[in-house]
Amino acid sequence: MADRIRLGMVGGGNDAFIGGVHRIASRIDGRFELVAGALSSTPEKAKASGAALGLDPARSYGSFDEMAEAEAARDDGIEAVSIVTPNHMHYKAAKPFLERGIHVICDKPLTATMDEAEAFGTAVAASDALFVLTHNYTGYPMVRQARAMVEAGDLGKLRVVQVEYPQDWLAEPIEQEGQKQAAWRTDPARSGAGGSVGDIGTHAFNLAGFVTGLTATELAADLQHFGPGRTLDDNAHVMLRFDGGARGMLWSSQIAHGNENALRLRVYGDKGGLEWAQEDPNYLWFTPLGEPKRVIRRNGAGSNAAAQAVSRVPSGHPEGYLEGFANLYSAAADAIRAVQGGAARADVMGLLPGIDDGLAGMRFISACVTSSSKNAAWVQL
Amino acid sequence: MADRIRLGMVGGGNDAFIGGVHRIASRIDGRFELVAGALSSTPEKAKASGAALGLDPARSYGSFDEMAEAEAARDDGIEAVSIVTPNHMHYKAAKPFLERGIHVICDKPLTATMDEAEAFGTAVAASDALFVLTHNYTGYPMVRQARAMVEAGDLGKLRVVQVEYPQDWLAEPIEQEGQKQAAWRTDPARSGAGGSVGDIGTHAFNLAGFVTGLTATELAADLQHFGPGRTLDDNAHVMLRFDGGARGMLWSSQIAHGNENALRLRVYGDKGGLEWAQEDPNYLWFTPLGEPKRVIRRNGAGSNAAAQAVSRVPSGHPEGYLEGFANLYSAAADAIRAVQGGAARADVMGLLPGIDDGLAGMRFISACVTSSSKNAAWVQL
Amino acid sequence: MADRIRLGMVGGGNDAFIGGVHRIASRIDGRFELVAGALSSTPEKAKASGAALGLDPARSYGSFDEMAEAEAARDDGIEAVSIVTPNHMHYKAAKPFLERGIHVICDKPLTATMDEAEAFGTAVAASDALFVLTHNYTGYPMVRQARAMVEAGDLGKLRVVQVEYPQDWLAEPIEQEGQKQAAWRTDPARSGAGGSVGDIGTHAFNLAGFVTGLTATELAADLQHFGPGRTLDDNAHVMLRFDGGARGMLWSSQIAHGNENALRLRVYGDKGGLEWAQEDPNYLWFTPLGEPKRVIRRNGAGSNAAAQAVSRVPSGHPEGYLEGFANLYSAAADAIRAVQGGAARADVMGLLPGIDDGLAGMRFISACVTSSSKNAAWVQL
Amino acid sequence: MADRIRLGMVGGGNDAFIGGVHRIASRIDGRFELVAGALSSTPEKAKASGAALGLDPARSYGSFDEMAEAEAARDDGIEAVSIVTPNHMHYKAAKPFLERGIHVICDKPLTATMDEAEAFGTAVAASDALFVLTHNYTGYPMVRQARAMVEAGDLGKLRVVQVEYPQDWLAEPIEQEGQKQAAWRTDPARSGAGGSVGDIGTHAFNLAGFVTGLTATELAADLQHFGPGRTLDDNAHVMLRFDGGARGMLWSSQIAHGNENALRLRVYGDKGGLEWAQEDPNYLWFTPLGEPKRVIRRNGAGSNAAAQAVSRVPSGHPEGYLEGFANLYSAAADAIRAVQGGAARADVMGLLPGIDDGLAGMRFISACVTSSSKNAAWVQL
Repeated sequence: MADRIRLGMVGGGNDAFIGGVHRIASRIDGRFELVAGALSSTPEKAKASGAALGLDPARSYGSFDEMAEAEAARDDGIEAVSIVTPNHMHYKAAKPFLERGIHVICDKPLTATMDEAEAFGTAVAASDALFVLTHNYTGYPMVRQARAMVEAGDLGKLRVVQVEYPQDWLAEPIEQEGQKQAAWRTDPARSGAGGSVGDIGTHAFNLAGFVTGLTATELAADLQHFGPGRTLDDNAHVMLRFDGGARGMLWSSQIAHGNENALRLRVYGDKGGLEWAQEDPNYLWFTPLGEPKRVIRRNGAGSNAAAQAVSRVPSGHPEGYLEGFANLYSAAADAIRAVQGGAARADVMGLLPGIDDGLAGMRFISACVTSSSKNAAWVQL
Repeated sequence: MADRIRLGMVGGGNDAFIGGVHRIASRIDGRFELVAGALSSTPEKAKASGAALGLDPARSYGSFDEMAEAEAARDDGIEAVSIVTPNHMHYKAAKPFLERGIHVICDKPLTATMDEAEAFGTAVAASDALFVLTHNYTGYPMVRQARAMVEAGDLGKLRVVQVEYPQDWLAEPIEQEGQKQAAWRTDPARSGAGGSVGDIGTHAFNLAGFVTGLTATELAADLQHFGPGRTLDDNAHVMLRFDGGARGMLWSSQIAHGNENALRLRVYGDKGGLEWAQEDPNYLWFTPLGEPKRVIRRNGAGSNAAAQAVSRVPSGHPEGYLEGFANLYSAAADAIRAVQGGAARADVMGLLPGIDDGLAGMRFISACVTSSSKNAAWVQL
Repeated sequence: MADRIRLGMVGGGNDAFIGGVHRIASRIDGRFELVAGALSSTPEKAKASGAALGLDPARSYGSFDEMAEAEAARDDGIEAVSIVTPNHMHYKAAKPFLERGIHVICDKPLTATMDEAEAFGTAVAASDALFVLTHNYTGYPMVRQARAMVEAGDLGKLRVVQVEYPQDWLAEPIEQEGQKQAAWRTDPARSGAGGSVGDIGTHAFNLAGFVTGLTATELAADLQHFGPGRTLDDNAHVMLRFDGGARGMLWSSQIAHGNENALRLRVYGDKGGLEWAQEDPNYLWFTPLGEPKRVIRRNGAGSNAAAQAVSRVPSGHPEGYLEGFANLYSAAADAIRAVQGGAARADVMGLLPGIDDGLAGMRFISACVTSSSKNAAWVQL
Repeated sequence: MADRIRLGMVGGGNDAFIGGVHRIASRIDGRFELVAGALSSTPEKAKASGAALGLDPARSYGSFDEMAEAEAARDDGIEAVSIVTPNHMHYKAAKPFLERGIHVICDKPLTATMDEAEAFGTAVAASDALFVLTHNYTGYPMVRQARAMVEAGDLGKLRVVQVEYPQDWLAEPIEQEGQKQAAWRTDPARSGAGGSVGDIGTHAFNLAGFVTGLTATELAADLQHFGPGRTLDDNAHVMLRFDGGARGMLWSSQIAHGNENALRLRVYGDKGGLEWAQEDPNYLWFTPLGEPKRVIRRNGAGSNAAAQAVSRVPSGHPEGYLEGFANLYSAAADAIRAVQGGAARADVMGLLPGIDDGLAGMRFISACVTSSSKNAAWVQL
C-alpha cells in the first residue's frame, strides 16, 4: 500500500520480546513499513538483527543517534520511530528523534527514574512530534467498551476499583541464570525503583484510570521482594483513593504460580459492576443493579460502537483467529518459496490443508445430505 | 521487506468478511504484499474496492480471467492468489491461475457441488502450482499441540470423538432482509447442497480429522432447517464411524442462541482425554487416565514444540494481544497523518496514551516506593 | 419432629452408594425417620448394616418379603419404603410393599427388562400406594427454573435439544478387579440391556423431557463398548426426534476422561437458548434472541418461583454450603460424645473452630476499625 | 437413631436465615435432634416459631434464661445449644448454658464488642462445656484439602495470601426499607464496630488462617461506607502481614454488583499456588512450580484424605446433589401425607417422577438397544 508510514525502531533485536510485538502490531492493518533500525546497543548485534529483518544495510544503524541524524537527512527518511529498549534507555533514545520532529512510539514505563521522566516531559513539550506510549491494554475492544459504558453512566457513580496483575515467571530467581528479560527487570539500574510495580503495576494503574476516568489522589503501598537476592519488589500491595471518593486496591505480582499474565479489572458503581480479564479479552461481564450478570462479547449482542471501532473479526472469532489464519498464510509463503526454489510440490505442504482436504470436505457434505435424505441411513465416506 | 510474496485476490471487496481476514493474515508475519485484485464480480465495485485498498489501478481488474492473463504476463506479476468468493465461484476463479502456475490459496468448502470438486481436483493435479485450502482452525497453536499429543500417544488408542460447531446468527431468517452473508449461505445455487454442514460442519469435520489423524469411514446424518423459508440445513446431527473403531458425533448449527462461533472438539482414548474450544483458543484441557484435569496454555508449562512453532507471544498474552497492540499502532498512524496534514498535536491523540500517561505511571511507581519505604504511609499522587 | 413419616429401606447396606444418598436426602428437611430395613440380600450383612445405622434389631430384616409382612402388621409400621437395590431387584422388592399399600420410593431405571417394567406398571396401577422414581436431577432448583421458563415461552417454539451425560469411571475395566458398583452396572443380568444408556442415559433422556415438555417420538442409536470384555454399551450416540418437530442428540459415556458426572442440557427455541450443567448446578445460562448471554443464579436476580420453591439457602451460597455446615455440626457431635465419655475438652476439638477463633476474629475487626480510624496505620494483631 | 444429641436453639425463629441453616446442618448426618428452643426475643414469636417447627410446647421457651434453667433440670434436657441470634446477643445467650455445662455451638462473629468477647473467653474457660464457633467455610472438603496440602509442604514456604469476600446485597440501602437481615447488620448497636469486616471479613480472615496456618501479626485497613446513611463499613480494604514474612490483602464488600457470596482464597508459596472459590466449592486449583494448572475435584483424582473425610457423595456430584435429592424426598413426604389425608393419588404427584417416567426410561433403553442392533435404524418410542 502506497500510504504506509515509514517506521524506524530502536531496540528490539534478537532475543527481545516486545520489539517483535511492535513490529507485528505495526503490520496488522498495513499502516506502517519498517525501513530503518538501531536494533541493539551493540553495533554488531544491531547489524545482524537488521539483516535478519531484511532491512536495507545502509539503514541498519549502530546507534540511535546516528540513525536519527541520518534518517532526518533523507527525503525518504523515517516518519516515526518505535522505542523498545529497556526502561532506562527510553528517554535517551527518544530525545534525538523528538528534536528532529520524528514521531515517537515508546514502550512503557516512561523511564527508570522520576527525574528522567520529567526531562522527557519537557522534551516532548518542546517538540512538534507526537509521542505515543504503548499502554497496549487500552487497545482491547472490550476495554474500550468498558470505558464507554462507565462514561455513559451504566455503572452510576463509581465506588470501588479492584485491579490486579499477577504473573508467575519470576517465582524463581531466573535472573541469576542469565535470563535476559528477567535480568534487566530485576536490576534497579535498568528498571528504576519499581520492580513489579514498574513493569506491570503501571499497566494495572493505567488501565484502571483509562476505564474509570478517575484520578488517583493518594496511595498506601506495601512492596515486598521474595525472590532470593532481589532488591526490587516482585510483589506489591497498594490501597488507592480516587478523586470523588472511590477507593481501590491494586495487586501486582511476578511470583504468583498459575498466573501467566492475569491482568484483571473490576469496577463497581452505585448502579452496576463490570469485570474484565486480559487473558480472556473478548468477554466483558456486566451486572446492572438487581439484574443477572451477563457477558458482553466483542462484536456480539450488547457490544457498543467503542468496541466495534477497534475490532477486525466478528463475535465468536477470538482475536487470535487472525493469528491462526496467519499461520496458514505464512506456512504457504514458506511452501511457495520452497517450490520456487525447486522443491517438489508434494514435499512442501507439511500441515497445510490442500486439495485432498477440500475433496474430503465435499464428500462429507455430500454424505450428510445423502444420509439425511435416506432417513439417516449410514453412508460410506 | 524485500522477500515478500506478490499476492493477488479474487473476491473480498467491500461488504465481504473473509477477504479482509485473508488480507490481515497475510500481513501479520510480513510475508506477502497484496499487489493485484479482482475484488468483486461487478467490475465497478471491483475497481472501487481496489482503490479503497490502495491497489495500483492498473492491477485492479474487472474479472479474474483478465487478472490471470495480465498478471501472468508481467515480470513482477503475482506469485500467488487468494480466492475468497462464495463457494460456487471457487473453482472457476482458481482455474485460470492454476493453469498459469500461479499458487492458489482458497477458502473452504472447496466448491458448491461434488462434480465441480472433482474437476477442481483434476485441475490441481494438472498444475505445478501449490493449492492451499484455508481450514484455518488447524492453524491455532493449541490445535497443533493437540494433534502432536495424539500422535505421541498421550491419549492411547482413540475411542470417542465429539465435535460441535454451533452458531446463532441465522436464528432468524435475516437472508430475507438482504443480509449478504446470510443470503449466499442459505442459497443452494451459491452454497451447494450443504447449509450449516457445508459452511461450518466441514470445519468441524476437518478439525476432528486433523487432530485425531483418524479417517471417517461412514456417517448417518439428520439434517434440519428451522428458519422459515429455508431449504438448506441450518442444524445438523451426524453420527460418525472411524477407521480403527472410534466413533463420533458431530453437531453443526446456525440457530443455537448464545453460541457465536463455538467450535469445540473433545477426544477420548484409552489413556486420556483432550478438550479444545475455539472461542478460548489458548487453552487445551488434558486429563491423563486417573489424574486431575489440567489446562495447558499456549507457550505455558506443558506446551509442546508443535504449538510453540506457531506462537508469536508468550503464555498469558492471548493471541488478541497483538490486535490490541495493533489498535494503538493504527491509531498512531492516523494521528501521524493528521499532524502531517496540519492538525494540531493536541487534537489528534484521541484515546492514544501519551506523555501524560507516562508521567502518571512514573508518579505511581515513585509513590509506591515512597509509601512502602514509610511503612505504607499514604502518599499524595 | 412429631410428623415425620416412618420409612423403611430395601438395599443400601455397607458398600452401597445410593442408599446413603437416599438416607441423607430423607433427613435434610426432617420429614422422614428411618425405622426399618432389609439392607442387603445376605441376611447377615443386612443385620450388620442395620446395626451400623442404629436400627431397632427387631426391625432390621433379612429379606424384603419378611419386612413387608412384619411392618404391615405393626401399628407403627413403616408408611413408605425406599428401594435402592440394583436394577434387577427393583420390581421384586417393591411388589410386596405396593400390595400392602405402603408407598414406594424407587431408584431408577425402573427394572432390568422391559417385561418386568410392564409388570411393575401393572402392580403400581393395582395398588393405592404412591410410586415415586428418583429421577433426582429434576429436583435441582435451576432445572425447575429451566422447565418453568420453557413453559412460559421464554424460548419460543423449541427446535434443538442437546443433552449429554459423560463420565469416566469405567474407562478401565474395573469391574474385573471386583469394584462392586462397576460389577453390577456392566452385568446384563443385573442391569438389563442398557449399559451407559440405562445407568445414565435414562437420566439424560428424562431430564430433556422434564425441562422441554417434549415427547420423543423416535430415535436412532449407535451403542459401543470399548472396555475390554464388556458386552453392555459404555458409550452411546443417539439422535432424537420429538413431537412437534424438534430434534436432538444424546450422548452417554462412562469412558470419557475428565468427565466425572457431567450431565449437561442445552435447549434452543426460536426465541432463545438455555444451558445447564449438573456439575455447576446453581447456574442457568440464558440467551434471549439477540441479547447477551446471562447467568441466572439460584435465588439470585432473574430466578423464578419454581426455583425458589425448592431452594434452602440464598444465592451465592452453593447448595454444598449446607454440607459444609453439616461437617461442623457432625464434628461437634463427635466432640460432645467424646467429652461426655470423659475425654478432656482440649483433646476433642480437632479442626473445629472455637473460642480462640472467635477472639481472633474480634481482634481482626477491632484492628480494622482502629487502623482505618488512623488513616490506615499499621496495627498489631 | 438412638444416639442423637438433644439440641436446643436460641434465635432462629421465623424470618431468620441462619437458624434454618443450622437446623438443616444438624440433620444431614442424623446426629442431632432439635428438642427445645427460645427462638425469638419476643415470647409470642418464640412460641409461634416453636410450633411451626413441631417443638413440644412445654420446651418452646420465652427466653434463653428460662430455657437454660428448665432444660438443665430435666433428665432428658438438651445436651447442646445452638446460638443463632444477632451478634450482640451471642454472649448473653450463651452464658447461662455454659454455666450449666451445656455445650454451645455459636454463630460468628463472637460478639459485637471486644470487651464482651473477652468476657466470653473467660466464661468459656470457666465452663466444662465445649464451645464451637461456626466458621462454616472451614467445613468444605476442598478447604480441608487445601489446608492439608499447605501443611504437607506442597506450596513450599508461603509468600502471598489474597483473600476476598465480595457480596452485593447491600448495594442499595435496603435497611431503610425494613429488610431485617440488613437492618441489624448495618446497626452498630447490634453488629458492633465492623460492618462488612465483621459480617464477612472475619470469615475471610479466618479462612486464610485456617488454610495457611499463618498468624497475622499486623494490618493496615481502609474502611468505607458508600450506602447512604450508613455508619458501618460496607466495603473494606486491608493489607496484612503474617508471621514468617508472608504478606496479604483482604477485601470485603457488600456493594460489589454481580458478587453474591464470592469468598475466594489464593495462596502462593515458593513451590506452588492454590485457588479456591466458595461459589464453586468442589474445585481446588493447584499450580505446582513450572507445571500446568490443574483442577482437583472433591473425591476425584488428586483429592486427599482430609477432603474425603468430610465428603458424602462421589466426585462430579456437586454437594448440592443431596439437596436436589432431598427435594424429591420432601415432595414425596407431602404427597404421602396428602393421600393419607384422603387425596386422590393422581392429584398429589405434582412434579414427582413416577411409574410413567420409569416406563418411558425403559422404552428409551429398549429403543436404543434395538436401534443400535439394526445399525442405528430409527425406532419409534
